[in-house]
Amino acid sequence: MTLFEIRQAIQPLDAAAMEASRKRWDAIAKPLHSLGLLEDAVVKIAGITGNVDVSLGRSAVLMMCADNGVVAEGVTQTGQDVTAIVAENAAKGDSSVCRMARVAGADVFPVDVGVARPVNPAVRQCNIRRGTRNIAVEPAMTEAEAMAAIETGIELVREKKAEGYGLFALGEMGIGNTTTASAITAVLTGAPIETVTGRGAGLSDAGLRRKKDAIARAIAVNHPDSNDAFSVLRCLGGLDIAALAGVCLGGALNRVPVLLDGFISAAAALAAVRMCPACGAYLLASHVSKEPAGMLVLNALGLKPLICAEMCLGEGTGAVAAMPLLAMALAVYDEMRTFEEIDVAAYTPQS
Amino acid sequence: MTLFEIRQAIQPLDAAAMEASRKRWDAIAKPLHSLGLLEDAVVKIAGITGNVDVSLGRSAVLMMCADNGVVAEGVTQTGQDVTAIVAENAAKGDSSVCRMARVAGADVFPVDVGVARPVNPAVRQCNIRRGTRNIAVEPAMTEAEAMAAIETGIELVREKKAEGYGLFALGEMGIGNTTTASAITAVLTGAPIETVTGRGAGLSDAGLRRKKDAIARAIAVNHPDSNDAFSVLRCLGGLDIAALAGVCLGGALNRVPVLLDGFISAAAALAAVRMCPACGAYLLASHVSKEPAGMLVLNALGLKPLICAEMCLGEGTGAVAAMPLLAMALAVYDEMRTFEEIDVAAYTPQS
Repeated sequence: MTLFEIRQAIQPLDAAAMEASRKRWDAIAKPLHSLGLLEDAVVKIAGITGNVDVSLGRSAVLMMCADNGVVAEGVTQTGQDVTAIVAENAAKGDSSVCRMARVAGADVFPVDVGVARPVNPAVRQCNIRRGTRNIAVEPAMTEAEAMAAIETGIELVREKKAEGYGLFALGEMGIGNTTTASAITAVLTGAPIETVTGRGAGLSDAGLRRKKDAIARAIAVNHPDSNDAFSVLRCLGGLDIAALAGVCLGGALNRVPVLLDGFISAAAALAAVRMCPACGAYLLASHVSKEPAGMLVLNALGLKPLICAEMCLGEGTGAVAAMPLLAMALAVYDEMRTFEEIDVAAYTPQS
Repeated sequence: MTLFEIRQAIQPLDAAAMEASRKRWDAIAKPLHSLGLLEDAVVKIAGITGNVDVSLGRSAVLMMCADNGVVAEGVTQTGQDVTAIVAENAAKGDSSVCRMARVAGADVFPVDVGVARPVNPAVRQCNIRRGTRNIAVEPAMTEAEAMAAIETGIELVREKKAEGYGLFALGEMGIGNTTTASAITAVLTGAPIETVTGRGAGLSDAGLRRKKDAIARAIAVNHPDSNDAFSVLRCLGGLDIAALAGVCLGGALNRVPVLLDGFISAAAALAAVRMCPACGAYLLASHVSKEPAGMLVLNALGLKPLICAEMCLGEGTGAVAAMPLLAMALAVYDEMRTFEEIDVAAYTPQS
């Protein structure tokens, strides 16, 4: 599919299902809207799936793994090989997001979309290129590479939905990808590099200076048009971020909710929304990252986080953390008896 | 026990266990402190329990139910009978917090500490008085009544800890208790009534004016000394809030963590901390309530919320919502292999 075809294919949410869902919430014996954003999330999911009886099925974390050529600029404190190691560990169930997903009842799918070295076949093999080019020098990807990564994300949502998954969490592993996320964010939001660039996985002061400098050069060299989000993604992003943007589009195409993780996933979502605005309605925020631009990107997306625990681990951990909150909201939504049944009509607000 | 004896009996946290816990986190193969406040919560629990191997056992929601005489002032949109109805429903597993607790694996114990009418014996029977006096006219409780409510909270923690519970969530049901919570908050923090008073379960504009006026009269009539937190609690609070303050003290006396819910529970915790400052170390925040003074009271307690989902339901729902987050943090803390084992020493920040 071309981006034009994707834009044509994405439908708006089902307004009738959302209205019915809001009415169901309002009929439950508790103060109106007292579950706040959790109620809003359920209403949105009703609109996404077109069904007031919200049932998510299984939850999948699509953990897009890729390397980023910009690590040559000394913008990380960690060797590039960690991308492959963590992807392989995740395939064995041995990473932070896997531990948390077992508690949440979610399945984690690490996907090699661009890891620099071949990884264990237990990692889903979708490698497009063995790491991107260095954005501080040239565009990260060709148009074909960026589009292939987007299509990989779309296709995985389609495939996993057919397997019974009904909630898709964005996850990633890619050394250097807070640098690419900050570069994308600076261009798409117009915010200063200084504001949108943080320490990622614990960068030193000197490393942070190198990171900001590399982003400045990347923008100067590639001079992408901020109104052409695909070009911004292609020149300044990575295969991980492009694949996550694809998951956002795939969610909208397949009418399933997509749960953001932290800053990197939000930058990917912002790129997706700028390419295809209608896909924004299919996105749910989970947490606000401790990275400095975490809230800025959520604001640009018009999304409010559920969790404010100062997390910045990545892998999809923040998205997984939000899953039990949705499950608990649905437990109230699905099972709670209404006012009439428990005879407490007076418990609703009256003017 | 007298408050003096309680103050004498509360011990500081185990600094060695906390240091060992922090070291364990730092040895896990992920960016340092990237689970943010979830890591801090686990470290605190290690200090509370005196054991680096954090194991919470079962989780209990102590849902203190009581009526408040101030409802005579027209400060609620809901009839007083709802307190008893929701308490009885909770005993049958039929309330919002019960639905959510089943997802979180927690047990809910509704306790009648001051409901206005006799309730079904399935609700724990600890009634001290059939509703408090009207704070806008006179002190809510006698000293003996307030102390009995505090002792009820302390005793229930001791009893449930002996049954194997290791995490205690504050919950409440008491029509009118945002009025008493706001009155306590205004005096203990010095913040204006205007700032700390909200719409509770959905009050109208006229109701909100009556509520603020009732609080102003309550403070004028009782003129409690803001340095005497017990007197503030006794004059302006309720049996529900006093019992919750008792749970905070009971947590500290029994070295078990106490998880706050929203605004009302935080006001109770603030009263407990002002009575016995050392108990503050045993408290964990869960969410920040949508009530206007929610964050103000957490700030006064020096606690940061994990969840920012604009909830304001009460019953302990926000505390229960945070339980899976703690469980997920512990899943990483307990099981994650360390750097040395997975050979990614470079994944820790280096200067």
